[in-house]
Amino acid sequence: MKKEVLFVLLNEYADYEPAYISGSINCGRFGLKEKPLYINKVVAPTMDLVRSVGGFYTKPDYTFDTMPADYAALILIGGFGWESEEAKKLVPIIKQAISKGIIVGAICNGASFLAQNGFLNHIKHTGNGLDELKRWGGDNYTNEAGYQNQQAVSDHGIVTANGTASLEFAVELMRLLKIDTPENISAYFQFMKLGFCEFMKQLK
Amino acid sequence: MKKEVLFVLLNEYADYEPAYISGSINCGRFGLKEKPLYINKVVAPTMDLVRSVGGFYTKPDYTFDTMPADYAALILIGGFGWESEEAKKLVPIIKQAISKGIIVGAICNGASFLAQNGFLNHIKHTGNGLDELKRWGGDNYTNEAGYQNQQAVSDHGIVTANGTASLEFAVELMRLLKIDTPENISAYFQFMKLGFCEFMKQLK
Repeated sequence: MKKEVLFVLLNEYADYEPAYISGSINCGRFGLKEKPLYINKVVAPTMDLVRSVGGFYTKPDYTFDTMPADYAALILIGGFGWESEEAKKLVPIIKQAISKGIIVGAICNGASFLAQNGFLNHIKHTGNGLDELKRWGGDNYTNEAGYQNQQAVSDHGIVTANGTASLEFAVELMRLLKIDTPENISAYFQFMKLGFCEFMKQLK
Repeated sequence: MKKEVLFVLLNEYADYEPAYISGSINCGRFGLKEKPLYINKVVAPTMDLVRSVGGFYTKPDYTFDTMPADYAALILIGGFGWESEEAKKLVPIIKQAISKGIIVGAICNGASFLAQNGFLNHIKHTGNGLDELKRWGGDNYTNEAGYQNQQAVSDHGIVTANGTASLEFAVELMRLLKIDTPENISAYFQFMKLGFCEFMKQLK
């Protein structure tokens, strides 16, 4: 059975943050893959449609209560929902994922939420700047020394990224999930980061 | 009444292509705007949920038949649905939008579709490379001279972009829609394009 990659979406999630990694799981260089290695699923507090900051409404596949116990990755998408009461229900789910060695990704306020709940204290990590992590984390964040001034950081199976790093976040997760060869993943990054025009110029 | 910005989504639409412009309409520098100038709506062939390449399912607000006649912008999102029969129903809708002076955006295969239906013959434009526009357009595409080797091009109220140019596409539409001051739109572009780490370094 193919393993599922679970995207946690809360209301007011940032549309662009799941976009590169979700697409990369399903698409190769020449369009949709016939046999993706993973299946993307959306997890939300309830089965109600989840609203993005762009005002799009997405259907959840699972709630926090009905999501499977075994899966390939748990990806926390940023936005303005992470200070809600319902977000707190994720703490034991994240704890269990980490203890099982499941890949965890957290971008933007998803990473802030990890700081707030003490999940960044033993790994190298990043987020929306050190000041934000300290503000969210308070006494629960004790690993200022582990903060890296990078767009995305992958350490011990946990990928963190700032809110402008959707692409870098995707690339680190693609590497952990072994979606493609390292060379192809790097080429994908260059193509998307430089953009088609600059990429083609450099190829010449 | 606030005007609507209509996003045309077909099955297998590219998640990242509407993401920056939809978010920018609703969000300012410090989070969700209290009073966005526009309301984002999703238009699809039917009211069935629309599937993205990333496997997310989005609820349409309108079909091609129920969408309003007056609106601020029509934005054609790329992906793998543009060779479908149902896409053809958009031709008179696009024609009418252009004749009314409504802003039209088309990214990736959305731009290919414009080439295919003769909409790029009197404006400067771009898309997924000149070869792709010629392949899609055939005899209906007669404006090779108007092709610009740029990530996104805005001319006569029509914005075209290639599939790696979601951010540049958003920025050109933000300018046409006058979502913010030119300075703030440029700053947004730099912040997102360079990324938080590099942007902060350059500020110092």
